[in-house]
Amino acid sequence: FKKVTGLQYVRSFSASVYRSTKDGTFQDTARTLDEADPIAGAAAKFRIPSRVDITRNNDIDDPHTKSVYLAGNSLGLQPVRTYELLKEELDVWAKDGVNGHFRHSHNRPWLSIDETVTTIMANVVGAKTEEVAVMSTLTTNLHLLLSAFYRPTSDRYKIIIENKAFPSDHYAVESQIEIHGYDKADALVQIKPQEGNYILPTQQILDTITEHADNTALLLLPGIQYYTGQAFEVEKITKYAQSLGIIVGWDMAHAAGNLKLQLHDWNVDFAVWCTYKYLNSGPGGIGGLFVHEKNFDRPRLTGWWAHEKSTRFLMDNNFVPGKGASAFQLSNPSVLDTVALLASLEVFDQYGIAALRQKSENLTGFLETMLKATFPVDPPFTIITPSDPAQRGAQLSLLFKPGLMDKVHAHLDASAITTDERKPDVIRVAPTPLYNSYSDVVKFVEGLKTALEAASA
Amino acid sequence: FKKVTGLQYVRSFSASVYRSTKDGTFQDTARTLDEADPIAGAAAKFRIPSRVDITRNNDIDDPHTKSVYLAGNSLGLQPVRTYELLKEELDVWAKDGVNGHFRHSHNRPWLSIDETVTTIMANVVGAKTEEVAVMSTLTTNLHLLLSAFYRPTSDRYKIIIENKAFPSDHYAVESQIEIHGYDKADALVQIKPQEGNYILPTQQILDTITEHADNTALLLLPGIQYYTGQAFEVEKITKYAQSLGIIVGWDMAHAAGNLKLQLHDWNVDFAVWCTYKYLNSGPGGIGGLFVHEKNFDRPRLTGWWAHEKSTRFLMDNNFVPGKGASAFQLSNPSVLDTVALLASLEVFDQYGIAALRQKSENLTGFLETMLKATFPVDPPFTIITPSDPAQRGAQLSLLFKPGLMDKVHAHLDASAITTDERKPDVIRVAPTPLYNSYSDVVKFVEGLKTALEAASA
Ligand SMILES: Cc1ncc(COP(=O)(O)O)c(C=O)c1O
Ligand SMILES: Cc1ncc(COP(=O)(O)O)c(C=O)c1O
Repeated sequence: FKKVTGLQYVRSFSASVYRSTKDGTFQDTARTLDEADPIAGAAAKFRIPSRVDITRNNDIDDPHTKSVYLAGNSLGLQPVRTYELLKEELDVWAKDGVNGHFRHSHNRPWLSIDETVTTIMANVVGAKTEEVAVMSTLTTNLHLLLSAFYRPTSDRYKIIIENKAFPSDHYAVESQIEIHGYDKADALVQIKPQEGNYILPTQQILDTITEHADNTALLLLPGIQYYTGQAFEVEKITKYAQSLGIIVGWDMAHAAGNLKLQLHDWNVDFAVWCTYKYLNSGPGGIGGLFVHEKNFDRPRLTGWWAHEKSTRFLMDNNFVPGKGASAFQLSNPSVLDTVALLASLEVFDQYGIAALRQKSENLTGFLETMLKATFPVDPPFTIITPSDPAQRGAQLSLLFKPGLMDKVHAHLDASAITTDERKPDVIRVAPTPLYNSYSDVVKFVEGLKTALEAASA
Repeated sequence: FKKVTGLQYVRSFSASVYRSTKDGTFQDTARTLDEADPIAGAAAKFRIPSRVDITRNNDIDDPHTKSVYLAGNSLGLQPVRTYELLKEELDVWAKDGVNGHFRHSHNRPWLSIDETVTTIMANVVGAKTEEVAVMSTLTTNLHLLLSAFYRPTSDRYKIIIENKAFPSDHYAVESQIEIHGYDKADALVQIKPQEGNYILPTQQILDTITEHADNTALLLLPGIQYYTGQAFEVEKITKYAQSLGIIVGWDMAHAAGNLKLQLHDWNVDFAVWCTYKYLNSGPGGIGGLFVHEKNFDRPRLTGWWAHEKSTRFLMDNNFVPGKGASAFQLSNPSVLDTVALLASLEVFDQYGIAALRQKSENLTGFLETMLKATFPVDPPFTIITPSDPAQRGAQLSLLFKPGLMDKVHAHLDASAITTDERKPDVIRVAPTPLYNSYSDVVKFVEGLKTALEAASA
């Protein structure tokens, strides 16, 4: 067993370390890895549901120890700081009333509350500060950006998406096509995996782009596919589509705070994401958006928050746009939601997305290795997420043989192991580097084994 | 002095009661009125800044008594319940993680968190529950509704607004006109008060509508003008414009929770508002929108939250819209912002908007009467808000003679009296029925007198 200490994580981690791991020794390995984990301290910064709280079963063993929470791809856990920051804002509001916009005991005047988060947010997604705005919600931001980036003409009017796009994106794009007077049967191009396949190979994506290049206005893809967990080759796809005159936008809902994105360097035109998944901002938390600096001047729908800040309150109705992505804002943003995000971003800032991604690759690699070792022959599920760490984030999607998933998921739930089901047959498992350990992974795989035994009994 | 008890408030309150009030007796009158005030108990449900907190002056007299907060038209005060409700949500998140979407110790599962507020919100604005959605922010909602309601054609493409529209509305409308390829110099019609006038008489509005009727698509006006405090004749104007084939939308930012609106009965096409003013939801709080039921089927920009609820999670990308205004939603909404609004709406629900509006008319009438009595000859300011209670809400706008306003405002601030300044010469004063008393009004007028003496000394 190769000892892994400090930041000496390696890309080939799962392959090299675990190939030699014998069934039964995973627990020890996990303990060793947890001890060496430079990120391990981050878990204490989150409120992890206890076993009794998450199961609501008072008879469960070890009721007050931590449950295993592997659903950060759906709703991230709550930073301990969230409560403190919200309390601070409530106290400013109670003591200063409307003056909180200008003066603030914690140095977060509300008029520029967004500035408390944009720089860290930009670091997390690999952007310049001025290319990022934190505002509104994902689908809304998508529409606002499409108002700037989707300007169809009779020559170029098609939008390419994948055929299993997240429903909200699908509906958003459909309605944009229709509102511009085009017919979705013609204008909406959906890339569909080959029969029997779940993954979309890059080449297939490029081929579809080539096929429709002449009359395609825009390409919208997810950084990570929500169902399969596939991470797309953002840079390569972006470059190819742009070379054919196509605008390229990305839905980074499952990628932000998960992958090490380089939105600026990859020359992405625009991107949107939510912050309630890997970014732990809470249910319905505030959204994020990226506009590449080359696109700052595109006409768009606007509002007073897009106005140049120093003269915004002259209120003379002469619009002078602010700089950068901040000039895509419309309204004064939610202070509560902004500081709820800040609570989590402070942790990202402390550890850095590079180190978190490194641990994440190892953690998910460990999960994959242990799953394969535990179910070596004729496994009752297929891992439909790619095996290549570069083609996935934290999440593995397990496609169960028909009739198993519901029972397995219920059994895991009852064992205080939270995962995320997608009907009819998929369970998504997302160990996150911030608050999950290698031992969590072991508990999950052991729980899964028991659950499968019970389900087939 | 006519005794006013219980709900026996009368429209002619200020005229009849105060005409007989002699200078110097306002304090007694206020005390009597406060004792008889059926809404007086509501103030205890709010966190009112103390005199030392709001001034940050440790040497101020009575440091720990309440300050006089008259800026609810800008940022409403914090309900005591806000903290409790936020704490409850944080605890659900901490204990249940993602399961909070489905099960919730306080019976507010996040998947339908909006349903906790829509009915009360609808009552406050005079709408059917299904005509109201609570989501996003004002300017964003305005754009989303314009995507449904502004569909210009070469025949009808103009938008009529007032020339002092709130900047965000002005910019929003301008950008909508431009994004549709029209020229704002032609397509944006601005109604301008007559020289030397601040108020827009209804007849002038109707005349402008008549003048541009043939090629006007949409009319957008504020329920209450933010600067002058003028309340517009919503029903009459709406009816007239609609009779000429024009869609009529209203910005109710300063009217929601202030006036007794009847959006449904007045046949308004659509309306938007924010909730951080009279609705006390906190800085950047969640927005509200109204779509009249006759307009439920208009095509619009959409997202997964607009999908019919029971089948939304089949995620098969076949869009089946939900019912009513809720089908104008795009994203899963902020839980923190929604319950912050709920905390305030619970108080509205307890007292009812009718009783609150009654007190508000009296309170503002009392303010006007005392101002006139205190500055009987050559007053250093003009009240530009209409005197008729039907043409205004809580707010009075005081236009000061040049050079006075800044000094007066600073003096009031230092005296723990919070009002709201609009450069160069206006102070807006908004006694709100929920947490302001008649005695607050007396303190303000006395403070103003002192401030003016100091300013002219
Ligand atoms: C009348 C009016 N309209 C629009 C707005 C813009 O609000 P938001 O920043 O919430 O979009 C305001 C904000 O104060 C307002 O007073
Ligand atoms: C990939 C993806 N896109 C879009 C959305 C929609 O998000 P919202 O409701 O915040 O608009 C989600 C939500 O889970 C998502 O996972």
